[in-house]
Amino acid sequence: MAFDLVVRGSLVLADGILENGYVAVSGGVIAAIGQGSPPAASEVVDHRGKLVFPGLVDGHMHTSSSTGWPGIEGASMSAAAGGVTTCVDMPYDVPRPVTDAGILAEKIQVVNATSHVDMALYGTIRKDGGVEEIAGLANAGVCSFKLSTYEYDAVRFPRINNTMMVEAFAEIAKTGLMVGIHNEDQEIVEGAIAAAKATGRTDPIMHARTRPPLCETMADLAIFEMALETGAHVHIAHSSLARGFDLAEIFRKQGGKTSGEACIQYLCMTEEDLVRLQGFGKCNPPFRTADEVERIWGSIAEGKVAYVSTDHAPWPKSRKEYTGDIFACGAGLTGLQSFAPLMFTLLRQRGLPLSLMASLCAERPAKFHGLFPRKGAIRIGCDADLLVMEEGEFTFDARDIQDREDAKWSPYDGMAMKARVAGTFLRGHCIWDGKQVLARPGTGRFVPRQHGETFTG
Amino acid sequence: MAFDLVVRGSLVLADGILENGYVAVSGGVIAAIGQGSPPAASEVVDHRGKLVFPGLVDGHMHTSSSTGWPGIEGASMSAAAGGVTTCVDMPYDVPRPVTDAGILAEKIQVVNATSHVDMALYGTIRKDGGVEEIAGLANAGVCSFKLSTYEYDAVRFPRINNTMMVEAFAEIAKTGLMVGIHNEDQEIVEGAIAAAKATGRTDPIMHARTRPPLCETMADLAIFEMALETGAHVHIAHSSLARGFDLAEIFRKQGGKTSGEACIQYLCMTEEDLVRLQGFGKCNPPFRTADEVERIWGSIAEGKVAYVSTDHAPWPKSRKEYTGDIFACGAGLTGLQSFAPLMFTLLRQRGLPLSLMASLCAERPAKFHGLFPRKGAIRIGCDADLLVMEEGEFTFDARDIQDREDAKWSPYDGMAMKARVAGTFLRGHCIWDGKQVLARPGTGRFVPRQHGETFTG
Amino acid sequence: MAFDLVVRGSLVLADGILENGYVAVSGGVIAAIGQGSPPAASEVVDHRGKLVFPGLVDGHMHTSSSTGWPGIEGASMSAAAGGVTTCVDMPYDVPRPVTDAGILAEKIQVVNATSHVDMALYGTIRKDGGVEEIAGLANAGVCSFKLSTYEYDAVRFPRINNTMMVEAFAEIAKTGLMVGIHNEDQEIVEGAIAAAKATGRTDPIMHARTRPPLCETMADLAIFEMALETGAHVHIAHSSLARGFDLAEIFRKQGGKTSGEACIQYLCMTEEDLVRLQGFGKCNPPFRTADEVERIWGSIAEGKVAYVSTDHAPWPKSRKEYTGDIFACGAGLTGLQSFAPLMFTLLRQRGLPLSLMASLCAERPAKFHGLFPRKGAIRIGCDADLLVMEEGEFTFDARDIQDREDAKWSPYDGMAMKARVAGTFLRGHCIWDGKQVLARPGTGRFVPRQHGETFTG
Amino acid sequence: MAFDLVVRGSLVLADGILENGYVAVSGGVIAAIGQGSPPAASEVVDHRGKLVFPGLVDGHMHTSSSTGWPGIEGASMSAAAGGVTTCVDMPYDVPRPVTDAGILAEKIQVVNATSHVDMALYGTIRKDGGVEEIAGLANAGVCSFKLSTYEYDAVRFPRINNTMMVEAFAEIAKTGLMVGIHNEDQEIVEGAIAAAKATGRTDPIMHARTRPPLCETMADLAIFEMALETGAHVHIAHSSLARGFDLAEIFRKQGGKTSGEACIQYLCMTEEDLVRLQGFGKCNPPFRTADEVERIWGSIAEGKVAYVSTDHAPWPKSRKEYTGDIFACGAGLTGLQSFAPLMFTLLRQRGLPLSLMASLCAERPAKFHGLFPRKGAIRIGCDADLLVMEEGEFTFDARDIQDREDAKWSPYDGMAMKARVAGTFLRGHCIWDGKQVLARPGTGRFVPRQHGETFTG
Repeated sequence: MAFDLVVRGSLVLADGILENGYVAVSGGVIAAIGQGSPPAASEVVDHRGKLVFPGLVDGHMHTSSSTGWPGIEGASMSAAAGGVTTCVDMPYDVPRPVTDAGILAEKIQVVNATSHVDMALYGTIRKDGGVEEIAGLANAGVCSFKLSTYEYDAVRFPRINNTMMVEAFAEIAKTGLMVGIHNEDQEIVEGAIAAAKATGRTDPIMHARTRPPLCETMADLAIFEMALETGAHVHIAHSSLARGFDLAEIFRKQGGKTSGEACIQYLCMTEEDLVRLQGFGKCNPPFRTADEVERIWGSIAEGKVAYVSTDHAPWPKSRKEYTGDIFACGAGLTGLQSFAPLMFTLLRQRGLPLSLMASLCAERPAKFHGLFPRKGAIRIGCDADLLVMEEGEFTFDARDIQDREDAKWSPYDGMAMKARVAGTFLRGHCIWDGKQVLARPGTGRFVPRQHGETFTG
Repeated sequence: MAFDLVVRGSLVLADGILENGYVAVSGGVIAAIGQGSPPAASEVVDHRGKLVFPGLVDGHMHTSSSTGWPGIEGASMSAAAGGVTTCVDMPYDVPRPVTDAGILAEKIQVVNATSHVDMALYGTIRKDGGVEEIAGLANAGVCSFKLSTYEYDAVRFPRINNTMMVEAFAEIAKTGLMVGIHNEDQEIVEGAIAAAKATGRTDPIMHARTRPPLCETMADLAIFEMALETGAHVHIAHSSLARGFDLAEIFRKQGGKTSGEACIQYLCMTEEDLVRLQGFGKCNPPFRTADEVERIWGSIAEGKVAYVSTDHAPWPKSRKEYTGDIFACGAGLTGLQSFAPLMFTLLRQRGLPLSLMASLCAERPAKFHGLFPRKGAIRIGCDADLLVMEEGEFTFDARDIQDREDAKWSPYDGMAMKARVAGTFLRGHCIWDGKQVLARPGTGRFVPRQHGETFTG
Repeated sequence: MAFDLVVRGSLVLADGILENGYVAVSGGVIAAIGQGSPPAASEVVDHRGKLVFPGLVDGHMHTSSSTGWPGIEGASMSAAAGGVTTCVDMPYDVPRPVTDAGILAEKIQVVNATSHVDMALYGTIRKDGGVEEIAGLANAGVCSFKLSTYEYDAVRFPRINNTMMVEAFAEIAKTGLMVGIHNEDQEIVEGAIAAAKATGRTDPIMHARTRPPLCETMADLAIFEMALETGAHVHIAHSSLARGFDLAEIFRKQGGKTSGEACIQYLCMTEEDLVRLQGFGKCNPPFRTADEVERIWGSIAEGKVAYVSTDHAPWPKSRKEYTGDIFACGAGLTGLQSFAPLMFTLLRQRGLPLSLMASLCAERPAKFHGLFPRKGAIRIGCDADLLVMEEGEFTFDARDIQDREDAKWSPYDGMAMKARVAGTFLRGHCIWDGKQVLARPGTGRFVPRQHGETFTG
Repeated sequence: MAFDLVVRGSLVLADGILENGYVAVSGGVIAAIGQGSPPAASEVVDHRGKLVFPGLVDGHMHTSSSTGWPGIEGASMSAAAGGVTTCVDMPYDVPRPVTDAGILAEKIQVVNATSHVDMALYGTIRKDGGVEEIAGLANAGVCSFKLSTYEYDAVRFPRINNTMMVEAFAEIAKTGLMVGIHNEDQEIVEGAIAAAKATGRTDPIMHARTRPPLCETMADLAIFEMALETGAHVHIAHSSLARGFDLAEIFRKQGGKTSGEACIQYLCMTEEDLVRLQGFGKCNPPFRTADEVERIWGSIAEGKVAYVSTDHAPWPKSRKEYTGDIFACGAGLTGLQSFAPLMFTLLRQRGLPLSLMASLCAERPAKFHGLFPRKGAIRIGCDADLLVMEEGEFTFDARDIQDREDAKWSPYDGMAMKARVAGTFLRGHCIWDGKQVLARPGTGRFVPRQHGETFTG
């Protein structure tokens, strides 16, 4: 019996590279993996000489923060072009965040109708309550929850106070799901911004100065202590600091289920880039120092980092333009389409094995979000989601971003890359051939969490 | 040349007991210590058969929280009767807390005019600022600073937000002084109380339930992280939990100057006592479980406890009467006059050496507050402050408290004690002869911090 | 193009089980792995309903200790029947241990001529020197080295003194190879045996009493300190104690390359079994208590155990018969043929995943000995070595052991097993069909170490 | 009632300095300590302007290793001149070490007849046994035991093998006494010396090269593991390495009673000094590097060092002369008379408080050997043993050593010192007036251990 599809190339697994390999697909699922002459198949795609990774799983993004659910269509198109086959989307949508099973059902419909890649979804609660909706959201398939210690918006992205945070953690603990936390201390940031404004300082670097490392670590400690108390798996949604990963480990050793992720910008960008990029370099937490970047790579080497994500947030360009007040710019970067080339490039520059990318950007986020073993690996039985990388000397050009016009900007615009995305496969179908997106709105599907087992690494 | 005074008895030093000893005093200062026949002196007081301790240093009390500075007179009289020769008074006074050098000067005048024992003073800042007054307060002799993460009153006992807390810590760090923190997380307590009231639960045990251990440890972590950031010596003003002491040690090992004290009530009282005593058993943090009491003794055995204090707060009886709403009662206990007999009794019951009392209730608090070597020890050159304990079977009777009438109550009323205070000496003068207070208002003096060296144990 | 062979069944991988899977083989190597309908092949072996593991890698055995190299033939036959496809044989052979490249070459010839399964080889040094032979042995393909702190025989199994041990470690460190150590303190054992004999105690339990835990841990500490000093990867060849694994970790944290293995007998046998089995239960280190067995499983759960081996030593029965003096019996157990059923049974009894067996008894020993990725896993590119287990209720019968007559004994004789070995494949050839050994002497091959990279877990 | 003696001066206590102080003595015991005008006394010695320390307690010396008990007379005379009022003498005497209560009784007689200062005594066991004598030795007043992992002489200073070491530790554990261990691994040293000699290298530096750090740490680990097993207080009699103190702490944290001392030579001498001094710089363990000296001071700062001793071993000069073979020279240095000036000088050079000398060279050794509170402190009830130091610029001249002629050598000869010993008092009597020894043979007394309580710091 012939397979539907065979893709040939060097397979990048989480524990090594299989030269002259192939992946054989039946019914959208990886049915065989091999080396040498491939078996018969309806279609054979020959990527020999290129590197075939598992399709990336981006564990952290915001498709609908600025435009609402219509944003899913464009963001997922750029994901397809970037080899990200599973998006894990945050719940902080305008006008309504995903705070109950009803809203979730609506968002799932939109995902199934408009997404170009598969998508798992976070749930959240309201500022004023809704803990009783947690079980329903879990039953309806959210992969994880997201809460925040910092308030961007009382409705869309509220700060949850400690009382409700503890209640929510206790309820989430029953589900086994992870709860990711936006980890910045509200008071420290507000105080610092007020002080900066009072002295007339609203230039770009002040974004970093008003969100000092302390504002992260204080939030980290607070939520980790609540994790220890409630038994919930509490995950800092981004740590720009090695200390965040150290703290997660200290609490794990005390019995807590605690973890943290690094976003790719914290692996390469520094305060100097914030000054250079102005509003287009603004994200929360902000870029840190070059020394801190090194320390984070150290955390990766020590195995302390849960996974690497993008925190993709495709603000309209107009919201990122700096006109004298950095505080007025939207916080967040685009990152989906640059994710694979950038991670590839950073690993090559540091002489690190490419299998780290298969692990940190696919298998591990899939495990943390309960999507494994359906997503995240080149592995028999997994969905046949593949990313084909072609090595070479390329330049990342923001104009190539496959999203709506005003999302075509990137902090990495013009950056030299060591590889490009030469092909993307989603459940056995080519959705990006290196030139254009072949997926259509609705090619992507909602992916529910597969099980309730907690994974903390 | 004859000494002014010799006191004979068994001397309880921090590292052992000297039988058949004596202390010889010249000019109010300990000039000689010996064993056997004492030297000539204008006066010899023979307490052979009794135990002579250093006068206790109570590192934490509130004489003026309910009545203002007039409260100093009565509280210090009960201190004299209890063998507490140095009171370290909190700055949270009505109507005005001690937030600048001017107010401090006024309070010093009142102390010098009305106190029966010596008194060192904490300073603080206002809710809305006053960090710039810190240097002035330190120069004017405050021994330590006190801030709070919890607000009892916006003026008298405000919550300092994290921004200002960091600023204050950075400023205090320059002085070398300790900053004690009332360590309870505001949001958790407020949320819990609101929830309790919403369900009509205002009975005594709800005081403990609405201030769960988590509200302490979250505050501990927050301030210890700020300690690490700023270099300030940050001290949790009371830990009712062994975990508080563990956390202080974890941060010390990371380079922080962190410490914490146990109040004597946390060494013996439990939630059952809160139910029994109702409003008269209400304090913050609340009594915990019998298991936790054991764990705290474990922390003492491991050398993790800075010192033991009373947190004496002589509310008028009327404010402690429970009439159906435990939340309406004032929080705080009387404890000065019972301090010495109770600590003595607890040590005897546990078979622990009495020298622990000399260490934990005199020498160590004096060291943490920068009063050593002038205060805190039977040691040549120290002020001749002595506490004479007579062993026997006694009962603590609240009616004997030497304070204003409405302060004559105690959670330890009726408790069997293994010793009583048979005499108190302040700078070489007997101020309590076992029957009556011989000191007069103004016998006591303000004691400034002696130096700026930090002591964290 | 058709494969040479396809084996169907549930594939037990190190990270999970692949139901309805297959392994496809070309040229003796795994060329494809899949699920569902298998590809065309010259031969299809259908083991659906059974569990297909990677062939086991037994990292520790002594085929030639009692009979010399002629023992290889029989021991390797029982390995084939037990699903052990790679034997890592110790160098302590009679009459000559493997102490230089010349002897190694001779042993390789014997292996290639007589072994039924593949075999990797340890090297060693002489009691009186031979450190200069280390590089040659490494170049000639030994996978690891073995030295001892305890002397069984001055020629065959000598104690290496500390001076020479340090020299040898320093030399081995240059190769990147592991050095396994027989870890018992000579003096403690000798002293205890002398004392036992002096009091006329030579009954079985005295074997355990004369090799107390201390004799292991003192040896562990000595060699780990030398590991730290020299940079060599030092591995305790068997720890019967959880403390051994703890110590390895303590030294790893100090920068040492230290590890240790558990033999399967320490996962199930206790002192009571020594009393019951007499000489047939004698091995070094001896069986410990039931509590210690639990602690070792705890070490496995904590990830501290390098791998699990058998320490197979097929003494002639006559040398194991107890006739009043336990010290006269040979030390060592048979274990090759029982290895797979026993490990399977223990995991089932404890509710642990079978993938632990794929990890601890195949992949990890292959990694520690530098044989991975050629050996140790069901993985594309690996040798097609497979073990097929049939679940059911079986009894291990020593008479079925496929070795010379006087080696047909087992401490596990009569034990109820949860599975049996239904088939073994070596490089794509069936060498055991569940009933008889199909391999012939010489079917097996010497396997050299594949690379010089150190793996400590 | 007048005191027998008053000594005036600045009193150096373990926790600070008391200016213008005095010590008053009655019946040879400190009866009063004071400041200012002293009480009446039969004799007043005015050392105002000088520093009065507690007489030093040298916890480690060998008066009788080369000459037998006749050596006590001279060594104790130099002790008197050096302000060492209590010598703790090792048991390794020629021709008979102190291995039973009978020999101890004889040595006590010699001490009482010939010593110039007080002396406590170690006991030991024979190479071939004598564990049953341990209880008798303890009852007869030895303060501690000494055993060795290294053999200098089969009778006088034997290596105790591990079997007997464990037995001895178990027996000593019952007494509560400390067992100090000469900690060098025999095999490593022997192997290294043999190798050095084989290559004709017998020059001074080879003494250090043949006793590398590893030979110490391996011995440390072995004996600490036995400490953990038996519950004995095991103390490394000298650590020339910071790692020794680290290991003692690691084992203490595991529950062991483990400690270690630094000899003063390891606080200042380096390998360069060995080259310079040749045989006169030879001791075991040998001098290390300047970096290691710094690390040891770090261990002191971290509170990990039990105490500081001299390991005084007054070999006849002829035995120290280097004539081409460093291995032929006796190992050991003189150090008693230089102890106080040298420690004083090192503290001053490093800006460390002099109270460290009161602690590390008097109070702490007295505590470890169970001599406190009779010995070791300026403290009421202690023996009136005092050391008077005069600050200034002095030079240590070996010719001034108050011992037999052939013991008048010192590795510190010609060294600039920051103070000299201006007076020594033993039990209230001046035994050194800064110019000559006033004590007579027999002025000193044997001091038995005062109690069986273990002190590990």
